Amino acid sequence: MKIRAGVFGATGYAGYELVQLLRRHPSAELVFATSEQSAGGWLSDSYPCLDDVALVRADEAPLGEVECAFCSLPHGASMATVRRAREAGVRVVDLSADFRLPDAAVYERWYKTAHEAPQLLAEAVYGLPELHREAIRGAQLVANPGCYPTSVILGCYPLAAQGLLEGGHVIVDSKSGVSGAGRSPSPTTHFCQVNESLAPYNVGHVHRHIPEMEQELSRLAGQPVRVTFAPHLVPVTRGMLSTLYVRVPPQHDAAALRRLYQETYAGEPLVHVLPEGTMATMSWATGTERCVISLHDAGVPGEAIVVSAIDNLGKGAAGQALQNMNVMFGLDETAGLRL
Amino acid sequence: MKIRAGVFGATGYAGYELVQLLRRHPSAELVFATSEQSAGGWLSDSYPCLDDVALVRADEAPLGEVECAFCSLPHGASMATVRRAREAGVRVVDLSADFRLPDAAVYERWYKTAHEAPQLLAEAVYGLPELHREAIRGAQLVANPGCYPTSVILGCYPLAAQGLLEGGHVIVDSKSGVSGAGRSPSPTTHFCQVNESLAPYNVGHVHRHIPEMEQELSRLAGQPVRVTFAPHLVPVTRGMLSTLYVRVPPQHDAAALRRLYQETYAGEPLVHVLPEGTMATMSWATGTERCVISLHDAGVPGEAIVVSAIDNLGKGAAGQALQNMNVMFGLDETAGLRL
Amino acid sequence: MKIRAGVFGATGYAGYELVQLLRRHPSAELVFATSEQSAGGWLSDSYPCLDDVALVRADEAPLGEVECAFCSLPHGASMATVRRAREAGVRVVDLSADFRLPDAAVYERWYKTAHEAPQLLAEAVYGLPELHREAIRGAQLVANPGCYPTSVILGCYPLAAQGLLEGGHVIVDSKSGVSGAGRSPSPTTHFCQVNESLAPYNVGHVHRHIPEMEQELSRLAGQPVRVTFAPHLVPVTRGMLSTLYVRVPPQHDAAALRRLYQETYAGEPLVHVLPEGTMATMSWATGTERCVISLHDAGVPGEAIVVSAIDNLGKGAAGQALQNMNVMFGLDETAGLRL
Amino acid sequence: MKIRAGVFGATGYAGYELVQLLRRHPSAELVFATSEQSAGGWLSDSYPCLDDVALVRADEAPLGEVECAFCSLPHGASMATVRRAREAGVRVVDLSADFRLPDAAVYERWYKTAHEAPQLLAEAVYGLPELHREAIRGAQLVANPGCYPTSVILGCYPLAAQGLLEGGHVIVDSKSGVSGAGRSPSPTTHFCQVNESLAPYNVGHVHRHIPEMEQELSRLAGQPVRVTFAPHLVPVTRGMLSTLYVRVPPQHDAAALRRLYQETYAGEPLVHVLPEGTMATMSWATGTERCVISLHDAGVPGEAIVVSAIDNLGKGAAGQALQNMNVMFGLDETAGLRL
Repeated sequence: MKIRAGVFGATGYAGYELVQLLRRHPSAELVFATSEQSAGGWLSDSYPCLDDVALVRADEAPLGEVECAFCSLPHGASMATVRRAREAGVRVVDLSADFRLPDAAVYERWYKTAHEAPQLLAEAVYGLPELHREAIRGAQLVANPGCYPTSVILGCYPLAAQGLLEGGHVIVDSKSGVSGAGRSPSPTTHFCQVNESLAPYNVGHVHRHIPEMEQELSRLAGQPVRVTFAPHLVPVTRGMLSTLYVRVPPQHDAAALRRLYQETYAGEPLVHVLPEGTMATMSWATGTERCVISLHDAGVPGEAIVVSAIDNLGKGAAGQALQNMNVMFGLDETAGLRL
Repeated sequence: MKIRAGVFGATGYAGYELVQLLRRHPSAELVFATSEQSAGGWLSDSYPCLDDVALVRADEAPLGEVECAFCSLPHGASMATVRRAREAGVRVVDLSADFRLPDAAVYERWYKTAHEAPQLLAEAVYGLPELHREAIRGAQLVANPGCYPTSVILGCYPLAAQGLLEGGHVIVDSKSGVSGAGRSPSPTTHFCQVNESLAPYNVGHVHRHIPEMEQELSRLAGQPVRVTFAPHLVPVTRGMLSTLYVRVPPQHDAAALRRLYQETYAGEPLVHVLPEGTMATMSWATGTERCVISLHDAGVPGEAIVVSAIDNLGKGAAGQALQNMNVMFGLDETAGLRL
Repeated sequence: MKIRAGVFGATGYAGYELVQLLRRHPSAELVFATSEQSAGGWLSDSYPCLDDVALVRADEAPLGEVECAFCSLPHGASMATVRRAREAGVRVVDLSADFRLPDAAVYERWYKTAHEAPQLLAEAVYGLPELHREAIRGAQLVANPGCYPTSVILGCYPLAAQGLLEGGHVIVDSKSGVSGAGRSPSPTTHFCQVNESLAPYNVGHVHRHIPEMEQELSRLAGQPVRVTFAPHLVPVTRGMLSTLYVRVPPQHDAAALRRLYQETYAGEPLVHVLPEGTMATMSWATGTERCVISLHDAGVPGEAIVVSAIDNLGKGAAGQALQNMNVMFGLDETAGLRL
Repeated sequence: MKIRAGVFGATGYAGYELVQLLRRHPSAELVFATSEQSAGGWLSDSYPCLDDVALVRADEAPLGEVECAFCSLPHGASMATVRRAREAGVRVVDLSADFRLPDAAVYERWYKTAHEAPQLLAEAVYGLPELHREAIRGAQLVANPGCYPTSVILGCYPLAAQGLLEGGHVIVDSKSGVSGAGRSPSPTTHFCQVNESLAPYNVGHVHRHIPEMEQELSRLAGQPVRVTFAPHLVPVTRGMLSTLYVRVPPQHDAAALRRLYQETYAGEPLVHVLPEGTMATMSWATGTERCVISLHDAGVPGEAIVVSAIDNLGKGAAGQALQNMNVMFGLDETAGLRL
């Protein structure tokens, strides 16, 4: 008996990735895939694929035939669909930001949009299995984390959980591949704009992924953690690397931190802490669902640098969504992944 | 009457760039170009060029026929050639690290090489015209700065000079194009290694450009300034972008800092401070000799982010070397540049 | 006395390149630059530049103040502006396709647009100086060639002119950088679509640059020449390389063809025929206004391969437009170019 | 019972790809992996991987414990290892060129190396399953085709087999990703050399993959077929696209050819003939073991253009090697592939 699943928003990068993963999943089955723009057509009109998938409008999706729905829609657009799926009794993994922040007022402040399904916020679980595995297991609605937060929270979790994040502050310098900007053409994603350049954007305390990071790190630390965040767009299709500058108690050098991280993540199938002398690079994570982490001394006691790499569409989006489904339905947590 | 100049190490990226700039320079003339590996051949064996240049061995270079010599040789290899040029009475712009640190012991600690011409260190001037223009004017030996230090020092100069660098500390996250790694093939510069990735290296307090940065910033600040430095290799040929995380007095928000930077650099032809709402990107500097800087709030009073972009071969190497020659010989400072 | 010039369509890639070239030109002066979308703003809103240029609407352009107008508008949109400029007595270099084909019916068949200024077709000169220098000198209206045709016609000219193009047929496999597709965002130019791929398009006998190629090659050969054409989009910003498969009289091996090409182009400042053992690559032409050509045996007598590389925005557009202006106004033909 | 397999040359790109595929193969098991340079170390020293693989020297490989050996060594170096494996009774898939040409003299003429195991040539089967499936099934030694020949032969097979290749001649313009040039650093594969360029090489009738192409196409056509071949290096890591210019009987337009190709490849799991209106691009094949083909009119009756795309490391090397193993051992032909 396979888990029957549907994908809302199947022609975006993350949605298409999900379709691909689901079709190879040994214990899951793709029942429907939606696209407002391409409804009536085929997924192969947008992407090459041998075994084709028909696209339907979201409101035609046969919710009664699935046990799990993935919503890979833009923030704001996801809420209504999630609500409909939940009303049909379907368990949901939502890849948008709509259910990541439990407080609708905080959501509205950062996303400049009224929340249309605030009653569902209480049941939503933040879908980072390394932090919330038990809650995800029983969840009806999982809010899949953003790509930047995934790389940052996993890169800080052992520190925050052990109370080692001195000053309650992390400086995050992130570098992202262009697929993170979505599939809609814009001046920002034009090849000639991206190629042979590297561009910071939303520098400071303005990117919408900040409240997620601060929420999870503060929860772990038991005190407010503030994130200074500078994301950069780099000329690669997939991949994300975050360089984290932290202050720690002086006795914790890189070797000690490495041991802490290796212990913390010992049983985690998707987090890989590198040994001394090896540095996390983007390509070590690209095309996988892994988060790859390396620890480094910053030159003086009391400071450290953490490098955390993921594939923004893998552990940063579709791969983590599938991992969440696996946890929710009691499957092997890495079933269907590309490890 | 044109300045007669020679280039030692003309087949490396910076050396070749210098040759190109010199050939277009209205008031300079290329007299010789050296290459140990390709001596006896032509520059066009390595690079496309219509008006070809014969390559000679360094010890065959007619030092007696030039007024200015550029040394674009690896650190350690440059010292002996510089000494020979100076003994011949030729003024020198050295692009290596050999004369950037006045203290031979510091040099030897960072570069693991004995200094063979320590007697010349006293006369060497650190060739960042925005800081040392007067000294460069009269200098016999100019030590052209490294690419990373150029982007970082120009990005911090107004703060350091005004005593605004709180805590005497800067966190520097730099991203460099691959030409910065030199022209010799290695696993690190193999296309398939670099492409679709982004790789930190020498993270912490280990990169050899650190003592230059700390030396100049400390001198400006009148107190020790420490640099935490994480360089990253990115899949572009040319370009460099440094994101600087600094602490400043709380009343200095981005707007105030922008005014300070615009005043400080008001007369500088090669430093461009961007207006509010525009962010420095790598491509704004690529192919130019400019340093492009933008200022940003970090989210709380007392913290700021500076973004500083240069072309690692332009303002970061050959372009700055030519600027130095222009200053040394009393020419228009931007003569021969591509602005 | 400088030539006073204006640029219609200054925010497109070719138009902006023209503005840059004009501002560095020793004997020309930029008087106006137009943009419908950005009128009232500055060129630096779209591109970084130190010395800024105000943008006006095309119908506000002070035609009475210029001697030369460049039209860098899309085909179809250019005709009306060219007509207006000509009515004002201004000499024009038109970068669109609107005046490249003397027969309005042929134009309308390929471009699916009625020609609005057919009366001007008779005075238009096809602006490939290597073929039509004398006519360009006296021309009031120069139709600047397309990028593909420039690479192909220069690659075949010596053969066609000498009657060596056996069978009256050329197979052209061209590879173009993405700037050739223009600055408007579209799925085709999205970074993630272009990157890590290579895509043929308009394969066969369908691309609109074909009639230009056939027109010029047939004129030279004195008999109809047919072109089979497969253009490909490659993941580079600038550059174009055409690989030409031709049949020639059997006694003409690559060495003989090389001599012929070197003789034909002996006095040409912008065409560079490579010596034996060197192959034209895209990067040898990128960033220049040169056409670089190499000749190769195909394995059997009677067949040859010609490789012809240009920068699609250099010799393929703006650089050639400036070369045409230089010829028209009796200036040094390479004045203001980057050679 | 799983097929026990070993990989000679596991640190090259194709060898490493094979290791990855074998580890995910449901019916095969990796028993050993060799590397002369890295023997004694781990595969993760060269590549990131969670489940690590020990590397041994080739002469230490436990041939007695495997049923199948893959040789992913350079041509010339492969012969001796293949002979040793065959003497141990192990079935071999050789990814080098050493056993692709049945005539040792032809091999020696093209590869400038004496053949050290000519006695094995008779038993070697050319490993293109679409042409030689039956022979591969019973083969002890399979010579895995080159990447260029795979794309070209599959692109011409239906024409050659039906006697439609007029003139016995194909013009092949191929574009290859850089991984095809191997993992050894060289000036040719330096990032700054490849990036923002496109470079033809070995143009005409000189590339060593030509005799394979001509051998197979001539065999199919029942008459000599000559290939004119211009390979080009493009700035992508993986991927290959060949544009084939052929002459066909005039009644065979693209629609007729498409039908022929679709019939010919109807049962083939790894060849995908595209419908009208869709063009094969490199990315449609990258990351897969598919060959994707599209057919196009050339503008006049009697000429056609075929576009054939593969992943040079997939169907062009490791993927096809695994497909061959599957055929040899009676497994599902696509078992372990990424389709």
